[in-house]
Amino acid sequence: MAAENWVFTVTAQTPTNIAVIKYWGKRDEDLILPINDSISVTLDPDHLCTTTSVAVSPDFTHDRMWLNGKEVSLSGGRYQNCLRELRSRASDVEDEKKGIKITKKDWEKLHVHVVSYNNFPTAAGLASSAAGLACLVFSLAKLMNVKEDHSRLSAIARQGSGSACRSLYGGFVKWIMGKEENGSDSIAVQLTDEKHWDDLVIIIAVVSSKQKETSSTSGMRDTVETSMLVEHRAKEVVPKRIIQMEEAIKNRDFPAFARLTCADSNQFHAVCLDTLPPIFYMNDTSHRIISYVEKWNRFEGTPQVAYTFDAGPNAVLISHNRKAAAQLLQRLLFFFPPQSDTDLSSYVIGDKTILQDAGIQDMKDIEALSPPPEIKETNTPAQKYKGDVSYFICTRPGRGPVVLTDESRSLINPETGLPK
Amino acid sequence: MAAENWVFTVTAQTPTNIAVIKYWGKRDEDLILPINDSISVTLDPDHLCTTTSVAVSPDFTHDRMWLNGKEVSLSGGRYQNCLRELRSRASDVEDEKKGIKITKKDWEKLHVHVVSYNNFPTAAGLASSAAGLACLVFSLAKLMNVKEDHSRLSAIARQGSGSACRSLYGGFVKWIMGKEENGSDSIAVQLTDEKHWDDLVIIIAVVSSKQKETSSTSGMRDTVETSMLVEHRAKEVVPKRIIQMEEAIKNRDFPAFARLTCADSNQFHAVCLDTLPPIFYMNDTSHRIISYVEKWNRFEGTPQVAYTFDAGPNAVLISHNRKAAAQLLQRLLFFFPPQSDTDLSSYVIGDKTILQDAGIQDMKDIEALSPPPEIKETNTPAQKYKGDVSYFICTRPGRGPVVLTDESRSLINPETGLPK
Repeated sequence: MAAENWVFTVTAQTPTNIAVIKYWGKRDEDLILPINDSISVTLDPDHLCTTTSVAVSPDFTHDRMWLNGKEVSLSGGRYQNCLRELRSRASDVEDEKKGIKITKKDWEKLHVHVVSYNNFPTAAGLASSAAGLACLVFSLAKLMNVKEDHSRLSAIARQGSGSACRSLYGGFVKWIMGKEENGSDSIAVQLTDEKHWDDLVIIIAVVSSKQKETSSTSGMRDTVETSMLVEHRAKEVVPKRIIQMEEAIKNRDFPAFARLTCADSNQFHAVCLDTLPPIFYMNDTSHRIISYVEKWNRFEGTPQVAYTFDAGPNAVLISHNRKAAAQLLQRLLFFFPPQSDTDLSSYVIGDKTILQDAGIQDMKDIEALSPPPEIKETNTPAQKYKGDVSYFICTRPGRGPVVLTDESRSLINPETGLPK
Repeated sequence: MAAENWVFTVTAQTPTNIAVIKYWGKRDEDLILPINDSISVTLDPDHLCTTTSVAVSPDFTHDRMWLNGKEVSLSGGRYQNCLRELRSRASDVEDEKKGIKITKKDWEKLHVHVVSYNNFPTAAGLASSAAGLACLVFSLAKLMNVKEDHSRLSAIARQGSGSACRSLYGGFVKWIMGKEENGSDSIAVQLTDEKHWDDLVIIIAVVSSKQKETSSTSGMRDTVETSMLVEHRAKEVVPKRIIQMEEAIKNRDFPAFARLTCADSNQFHAVCLDTLPPIFYMNDTSHRIISYVEKWNRFEGTPQVAYTFDAGPNAVLISHNRKAAAQLLQRLLFFFPPQSDTDLSSYVIGDKTILQDAGIQDMKDIEALSPPPEIKETNTPAQKYKGDVSYFICTRPGRGPVVLTDESRSLINPETGLPK
């Protein structure tokens, strides 16, 4: 090791992802090995991502982590698994200018600081732990000069948070469940990058909820132990859907993609309901969004939008193209207008051009929206649910993790090694 | 046929029933043959029943029916199937005093009037069609002197409305799916009468809902056509549960009974959710009731209450005994107090002695209810949901159909053959 007092940092940005064929149930709790393959779409990090700065210094006395401004413990088994795996793969690092020289074996003794920040609310149920763990693993791998490819890194991230392994790539990603007992073949692979199917637009409805939700870790454990349907799903249903979904993505076949995405989201929630005690992640608002989308898709004769829900009430709505997305946003704002004291710019966030396409510039435009034609037919006055959605995020499929070389983006003070 | 102008009537009362192992899915739409056995408990007709008067007269020009005061058409295929089956089994009827003599072959030409009345709201989703069709078949069978036993009648009622076949008996009833293509062995049999397990108390929470519900006929058709889980349920899960449920009922084993009842209700709703488009019968209020019951049962260490939900949001809560029922009612009224303009006597109907056991005489007693101990522990103030339940019905397992011989109970004017 060279002169003391240096702090060596790396900063990276990693996207979150949403599964279109769902992961629910582990066959190994410690290694986080799933009972079926899953497929996800990576979301644009401009709108939903984790930024993580990691640092190493001979002055650091123990591993420390700060998440969204608050120090959190790194002692959990999952963090420890990731750190151990990364340290064992670390290589020499040298920066002559800064007088830094770390040899492979130094990494066993050196401590790291991790500072992580989500650009979206952690508690909103938007897979923050997937992006977070993926970013931790990716940035530490860069710091430690781990020379393995993204697939190997995905197997490490998987041990931190299962779905994190899918955040190591952009575009569409498949998590192969693998067969090995040690999990070495339970890795993520990229199916296509984000440019392959770039007319998709994603709108997330962050749904207000007072319910305390079941954590996905304990939820999927209960499902595996008690559901009489989940094994049939994992063994008989999902393998066929994985093949069909890969085909749909390859061919940009939106009707097939939408059918599979919706059916698999519903089936995931079905096995949650078949759990003892039953798990409810969707609420009445989630159900209403599904009903509106189903009705509109039927009315149009071909799917315009696919819906998928993770372990919470938020709807992730994947539109065929910009036009469908603008029409979807009009519908969503018609049924779920903002509270009168809400500012439109904080009610629809992310890619604001969708709002422009929808012809909505202010609250008056929302009030002026007419009922969509598919409900006009029914002759019943449309009910509106003000306040049932907290806000909408407009986004799209996005790229995988990147290192941010601009030092101003670092979250760590390079002098102190502490959060800026 | 004898002198003209006579009207011959019969009046009967038939209970409704609630399945504890659910029927969902037909293998034959016309004959109404199910894809699995089901088991139900018959509800006390004092609180939930259909009363039907049927009449025959040479003056009647066509078959007519009045339901809850409104004339309805009998031309539907299901009614016609029942009428045809009954007519083909009719026997001679003679009443010398009234100068009535009908021979077996007369029935082919004679027309009937049917007047039917539910003692509970038809639209409340409380299996009114089950009680209604069972009562139609039972009363016409008596009128036409059909000499077949209840099991044979159940096969006729089944063709009117599947679950109606289970309303031909009191106590616990099993609908055997049968194997024959013509449905002759798809019949209901009594497992035990209502006296076998007479400490059970049933509280029904009629849940307010603005949603338009999917009819069970089209819902189960969609499930059979699109769910990837329903076949596994019907073939692998239900047969085992039927055996276990029969054993639990025989032994009055409440923990086993509760476990199976809750699990099967949840699984029925799970396959509804796995349908394309998904079917939601339970709403947030239903989910909350389940959560409260699950929490209470866990707190007590052994189940106090089983829950089951049919094709709607209403909760049917089966308590182990009167004590558990009184404690349940306290909890329900704590979480779901009546609107301030509601009268207690119309908010808790049926067997009012449960309300007495719960120590509740007026609205002040409801306001004075303290949070149940199982939620006190969590240290969060209990949220109340005023108005989310329309009313509660307290009832119990009850008897099968009976003929009402008291002429004052008849719904038909014996002179005109029209509704009184």
